[in-house]
Amino acid sequence: MSKRRSIIEIPSLNAIDRTANVGRQLAQALRNAIARGELRSGERLPSTRSLAASLKIARGTVVEVFDQLTAEGYLEARVGAGTRVATDLMDTTPAPPLAPAVPPPSADAVDLPSQAARLIAIARALTPHPPVPFAIAVPACGIAPDDNWRRLGNRVRASRQAAPSGYHDPMGLLELRLAIADHVRRARAVHCEPEQVIVTSGTQQGLYMAGRVLLSRDDPVWAEDPAYPGLTAVLDDLGVQMHRLPVDAQGMNVERGLELCPQARAAFVTPSHQYPIGMPLSMARRNALITWADQNRAWIVEDDYDSELRYAGHPFPSMQGLRPSRVIYLGTFSKVLFPSLRLGYVIAPSPVAEAFAGARAILDRHSPTAEQHVLAAYMREGYFEAHIRRIRGLYAERRAVLLSALERALPVGCRVQQSDQGMHILLWLPKEVDDVQLAARALSAGLAVRAISPMYAARPARPGLMLGFGGFLPDQLQAAVGELVKLLSQQMSAAGGPQQAEA
Amino acid sequence: MSKRRSIIEIPSLNAIDRTANVGRQLAQALRNAIARGELRSGERLPSTRSLAASLKIARGTVVEVFDQLTAEGYLEARVGAGTRVATDLMDTTPAPPLAPAVPPPSADAVDLPSQAARLIAIARALTPHPPVPFAIAVPACGIAPDDNWRRLGNRVRASRQAAPSGYHDPMGLLELRLAIADHVRRARAVHCEPEQVIVTSGTQQGLYMAGRVLLSRDDPVWAEDPAYPGLTAVLDDLGVQMHRLPVDAQGMNVERGLELCPQARAAFVTPSHQYPIGMPLSMARRNALITWADQNRAWIVEDDYDSELRYAGHPFPSMQGLRPSRVIYLGTFSKVLFPSLRLGYVIAPSPVAEAFAGARAILDRHSPTAEQHVLAAYMREGYFEAHIRRIRGLYAERRAVLLSALERALPVGCRVQQSDQGMHILLWLPKEVDDVQLAARALSAGLAVRAISPMYAARPARPGLMLGFGGFLPDQLQAAVGELVKLLSQQMSAAGGPQQAEA
Repeated sequence: MSKRRSIIEIPSLNAIDRTANVGRQLAQALRNAIARGELRSGERLPSTRSLAASLKIARGTVVEVFDQLTAEGYLEARVGAGTRVATDLMDTTPAPPLAPAVPPPSADAVDLPSQAARLIAIARALTPHPPVPFAIAVPACGIAPDDNWRRLGNRVRASRQAAPSGYHDPMGLLELRLAIADHVRRARAVHCEPEQVIVTSGTQQGLYMAGRVLLSRDDPVWAEDPAYPGLTAVLDDLGVQMHRLPVDAQGMNVERGLELCPQARAAFVTPSHQYPIGMPLSMARRNALITWADQNRAWIVEDDYDSELRYAGHPFPSMQGLRPSRVIYLGTFSKVLFPSLRLGYVIAPSPVAEAFAGARAILDRHSPTAEQHVLAAYMREGYFEAHIRRIRGLYAERRAVLLSALERALPVGCRVQQSDQGMHILLWLPKEVDDVQLAARALSAGLAVRAISPMYAARPARPGLMLGFGGFLPDQLQAAVGELVKLLSQQMSAAGGPQQAEA
Repeated sequence: MSKRRSIIEIPSLNAIDRTANVGRQLAQALRNAIARGELRSGERLPSTRSLAASLKIARGTVVEVFDQLTAEGYLEARVGAGTRVATDLMDTTPAPPLAPAVPPPSADAVDLPSQAARLIAIARALTPHPPVPFAIAVPACGIAPDDNWRRLGNRVRASRQAAPSGYHDPMGLLELRLAIADHVRRARAVHCEPEQVIVTSGTQQGLYMAGRVLLSRDDPVWAEDPAYPGLTAVLDDLGVQMHRLPVDAQGMNVERGLELCPQARAAFVTPSHQYPIGMPLSMARRNALITWADQNRAWIVEDDYDSELRYAGHPFPSMQGLRPSRVIYLGTFSKVLFPSLRLGYVIAPSPVAEAFAGARAILDRHSPTAEQHVLAAYMREGYFEAHIRRIRGLYAERRAVLLSALERALPVGCRVQQSDQGMHILLWLPKEVDDVQLAARALSAGLAVRAISPMYAARPARPGLMLGFGGFLPDQLQAAVGELVKLLSQQMSAAGGPQQAEA
């Protein structure tokens, strides 16, 4: 054993700040010194008296620090032998018998897990857009329920705990589930009881939970082509076998699914408003889908993300209402209220609903309680319906402005997809235009558009742009159309002049 | 084709409520009639004029309804041939060629997915306790930051959007990540920059994300025995191969892991305060764990769930501070603030942090924005540190009350585990006592205790009870100890009289 040092030469000890907690600084300096090898295993420390004197601090502080580090296992005190750096600090680890025979990497090198590249790509692909036209999910300029939401929230929080204690039911707050059941029964012809409602943190979580609950690894599933990238990322992540079914004027081509893979375990669809194109799933296709699900004991996952926002006719009734035992219905408040609220819901047949609660408990237990109280009150007191009516009018107006501005200015070869619902329209581009490049250029020019070709599995993918209109005033939309058309014309002439878009 | 009916005999049509939207009711009644087969494929409908007359409603309403149902695909209009129920409604589905030869189940029967039973069991196992002694996560009676939180929240929401528009960064709000980095650097000797901080909805989500990012299916991992049931549920769910390492007085037995499975890809540990028992991981074991991780390029997932609540000495510094490149550090606000807030954090080495952001985007995109603003202000303005100081004092007091009440009343054979941290203490029971049965009886008697034997993989498991003390006043705790000891004595005499607990 080495001799006791009378002075510990540790540079950081000189840096002790006497206005802060001296003991804590000394303890950390000693730990660092041990970790860096400046103090070695078995080495004896100076006495508390001499250390206190040399550092000009109270001896009691040093005693406390030694006790603490002894409790932590850094130091050991032996009767009559003073205090030393613990002897079993560094050498208790037998060489792992089956360790791979690679040299230990430098302690500072960071290894990337095998799925890191995929996940990093997803983080980048799902990066939200800045709040400039034509970002889709930006309920601004009179659209967000800001003042009502704040006032009601303050009232709700004043009338109960602001910091609700304890964990809560993973299914969600009962008052909110009652309000949701009531809403979807009336607005969407969904057949359900509150026991079937699970509050989620939005559609993304609903899709993930549906995947976890309904599917096992390698299960075949149907998804639309093109589809919501958040969905395909989930299905990839779960390691299921995805069969992408092309979308035509009637929506997802169910017949193609029956040819390709009738034994699929689930179909993920956006029947009210195909994402990203916009047409509804026809009645014939709905029936074909239900017949298939009945015959194959398969599931239909109905993502009904913006059905409250319909501008002509009534909203289509839900598929869930046609076959409650086979359909998992997903709704969200991100579209009609605001996305950063992170609240949505799943409606599932009764015993399956409890499995969703289990999945939620594993994933993140439950949604924040205080905001669930506010939303329940917002729905119960009629603000929610009033808000939908109000924004439907505002959106219809802005949508009309966008459509007529496009109609006046669009180059030949571009076409707006017919659709009566939602917060965006789809602009088809001539097939020689690179929509991803155009979207990147638009972003540099202060316009946020989503290219749809990356949402296709089939190649060549059709180029198109999603244009959100909800969060922007008519003037902004008109100016933005001018800007977009300029970029588009440049890109089209670079690509060889205007040609006909595909039908 | 069948003849045109001059009157549609649909019972629900007679139930039209003329004070509500008549068109919507008619549309739904027709859809229902078609779905139920009361109107059949190809059947001709009466003219809009005669239907309007028979129902005594405006003809324009009927025209609109027919248009709507035509758009939805329920009806089809042919020039000169009137309107009929769509012919391709029911019979476009070819029999699926590869469908299993089982009779289609009744449309009402609900199939349970194969993992439903497991998930339902988890939903039940993770059911939160009611707010009665000795529930653990109930920050009540002066512990919750209620008034400060409300006042600050109202101020923050008044100074900015109450309904923040748009989606946000899956990493979380930058202001909050700055505040978290600052906190863990000072309080936990964590080495990190704000870019390494990912806001989560709590430890449960942090564990799930760590599993998704670091591990692939069938990867071997180490976990403590006993362990947090929320962790073992995650590892089960991910289909990894779990090696449970027994916990002794020094914490998780790393040497056992080196014998059993040195090639494990990750170790999930609670080094500050073993869950549920309570001892810290010794310095020798910490070093052994880091040496193993270095040599095997494995990960250490450090769940540091309640390290702010230490009652003697300073908190142990984090393992992350010893080897930032190998440790994923998880922290939570559930313990020091309140669980229903659903906010926590992961600290990961830089490139891995972005993979966590991708995982978060897939799981549920991000945490609610408004509450992140409130928490960032709460930390920035010093409320958070003051709150920790305050509750540490309150908890210390309540803990002392609980310990001395137990000391006075405990039957022979029961023993309190030594521990200096957290919101619960562990009470060891004589080995013949069934802790699960005792916990169930206690719940009927109005006491919430967690049995720990289900948290063990090894058999026979040691019986014990987790007793939370944070949310209850000294009187409540004393009365509850009396009640618990009564139940315990009954159970012990039923089990054959007091015997020595295991050491």
